[in-house]
Amino acid sequence: MTVGSCSPLAPGPGQVQIRVSHCGICGTDLHIFHGKMDHRVKMPAVIGHEMSGAIVAVGDGVIGWKPGDRVTVRPLDPCGQCPACKNGHSHVCMNLKFIGIDTPGAMQGLWTVPAHTLHRLPEGVSYEHAAMIEPVAVACHDVRLGELKAGEFAVVLGGGPIGILIGLVAKATGARVVVSEINPFRIELAQSLGLEAVDPRSTDMVALVNEKTGGAGADVVFEVTGSAPAVELMTKLPRVRGRMVMVAIHGQPAPIDLFKFFWRELRLIGARVYEPQDFERALELAAAKALPLDRLITKVVPLEGLTGAFREMESGGEVMKILVRCSE
Amino acid sequence: MTVGSCSPLAPGPGQVQIRVSHCGICGTDLHIFHGKMDHRVKMPAVIGHEMSGAIVAVGDGVIGWKPGDRVTVRPLDPCGQCPACKNGHSHVCMNLKFIGIDTPGAMQGLWTVPAHTLHRLPEGVSYEHAAMIEPVAVACHDVRLGELKAGEFAVVLGGGPIGILIGLVAKATGARVVVSEINPFRIELAQSLGLEAVDPRSTDMVALVNEKTGGAGADVVFEVTGSAPAVELMTKLPRVRGRMVMVAIHGQPAPIDLFKFFWRELRLIGARVYEPQDFERALELAAAKALPLDRLITKVVPLEGLTGAFREMESGGEVMKILVRCSE
Repeated sequence: MTVGSCSPLAPGPGQVQIRVSHCGICGTDLHIFHGKMDHRVKMPAVIGHEMSGAIVAVGDGVIGWKPGDRVTVRPLDPCGQCPACKNGHSHVCMNLKFIGIDTPGAMQGLWTVPAHTLHRLPEGVSYEHAAMIEPVAVACHDVRLGELKAGEFAVVLGGGPIGILIGLVAKATGARVVVSEINPFRIELAQSLGLEAVDPRSTDMVALVNEKTGGAGADVVFEVTGSAPAVELMTKLPRVRGRMVMVAIHGQPAPIDLFKFFWRELRLIGARVYEPQDFERALELAAAKALPLDRLITKVVPLEGLTGAFREMESGGEVMKILVRCSE
Repeated sequence: MTVGSCSPLAPGPGQVQIRVSHCGICGTDLHIFHGKMDHRVKMPAVIGHEMSGAIVAVGDGVIGWKPGDRVTVRPLDPCGQCPACKNGHSHVCMNLKFIGIDTPGAMQGLWTVPAHTLHRLPEGVSYEHAAMIEPVAVACHDVRLGELKAGEFAVVLGGGPIGILIGLVAKATGARVVVSEINPFRIELAQSLGLEAVDPRSTDMVALVNEKTGGAGADVVFEVTGSAPAVELMTKLPRVRGRMVMVAIHGQPAPIDLFKFFWRELRLIGARVYEPQDFERALELAAAKALPLDRLITKVVPLEGLTGAFREMESGGEVMKILVRCSE
């Protein structure tokens, strides 16, 4: 893997070139580092897709953007031709290129991307916070697809970076939230961020949810663990007509209690990446200081520190989000 | 089990007494006959809940109904107090009494029920057809919760009475439909009713659906089999953001491909019984002669023929719906 190389090329038609300020390391980047995505990522590759920066050059035909504009990138490049694109769901295009996985990513000084991927940073949103917008947009997408409303009760199964962000976005939406997590560091972090967080091995989640909802059950459950025990727990928690949002990637089919779907008219909603409105919502929340983003950034390292950061993440220790500083 | 006994009691406040004309035999009735619901149904019991008839007496406080009114009954008696009822989902009340299972049913000459369960038969809807309204309302509920629209493509997994009715209601809604069924009699019946029906053991369902939808996938898949192979097939058929409706009762957790939910943003929607608007839609369809109800009624037997009818149904042979004539 090559990191830190700078593209010498001027942006082509419809493209912009960005001086990358910060880039977050995603769990997917760690998978790539470990070679688990070699079927998809050809080496050498520049990766990274959670970023912030400023435009330095714009290509022909780019309207509405100029050098100096502070931006983040929604790293999706859909084909525009497939049934999903034609049906208005280009974010889950059947031939989707994920920029930073399927094409070069942001862990470099200069990065060239299609202009249709850009979102403008509001004043007062720092580059460090802006590098968190992509995962926040994932959480905004999940909360929106779950149709979670103010006053409702949500359970988040899994308190990693995305689970915690879902909890925080849910809380910012006015919902009550409990996070279920087994890692003590993550439980403590969630609690320190004002989220109720419990270990499902020592807390009876069904009893807890019933107690908090007058016996009704949860309005929305977010499955963010990818584990079979969470799938088993998931269907026990929602109220009649409650929703479950499938955020996690389950590599294996998992047994699921379909009787509960019938009996309580439950709904399971798959959610993947984000749409433009999710980025806008994430930027609104960041601009309003509605999320404790500083607290989620464990550390900031220079590009040269990337390998060390991967090693720290893979240790499974006390890490939430590590940002890479890609330029001064 | 006692059948044919007549209640000598006048209807109480809020109740009406009905002279039952016809009552269909449901798969649930067969389960009760076989003792599989002894935990819920105390013997002796009068069962039956797919009926038609005319009011013969009304109790105190009943407004809008009079003797002679031709009716069918939506056989649900919710508690009105539980979170589901208070949240507007009384049809899946957490303490629901299903009339004809949890309380006496319609396989008798005179039947007393709460007036809130009544639906008026439109002119031109025969008592025989009206005894089919309850299962048609199930199909209307499933199609409505699946948000199936005209021009969309639907797959129905399972061509029993409910599966065929879902197919017919879907077609009456303007959708294109394929029914997947393994029983040759049911395949032929579905075909004779104008539905495309195939055996998934000899037809590649994924290829068929892709061919019929330009590679997109099905808009809605209805799971009406209760079998694990159908659950495995189910997630392979929908388009991006496609819906699956869980109609069947799965006694055991079934392995399900949750990755597909994430990848294509699929949705699984549990559907149970019906709401008032589903009965009204079923009655509209019957009044408009939009469904070939005659073709679904295999035979009509007198009350004395009930045991023989159960035996015929359990043989798994060439039977769709058998009606019982409860009075002349």
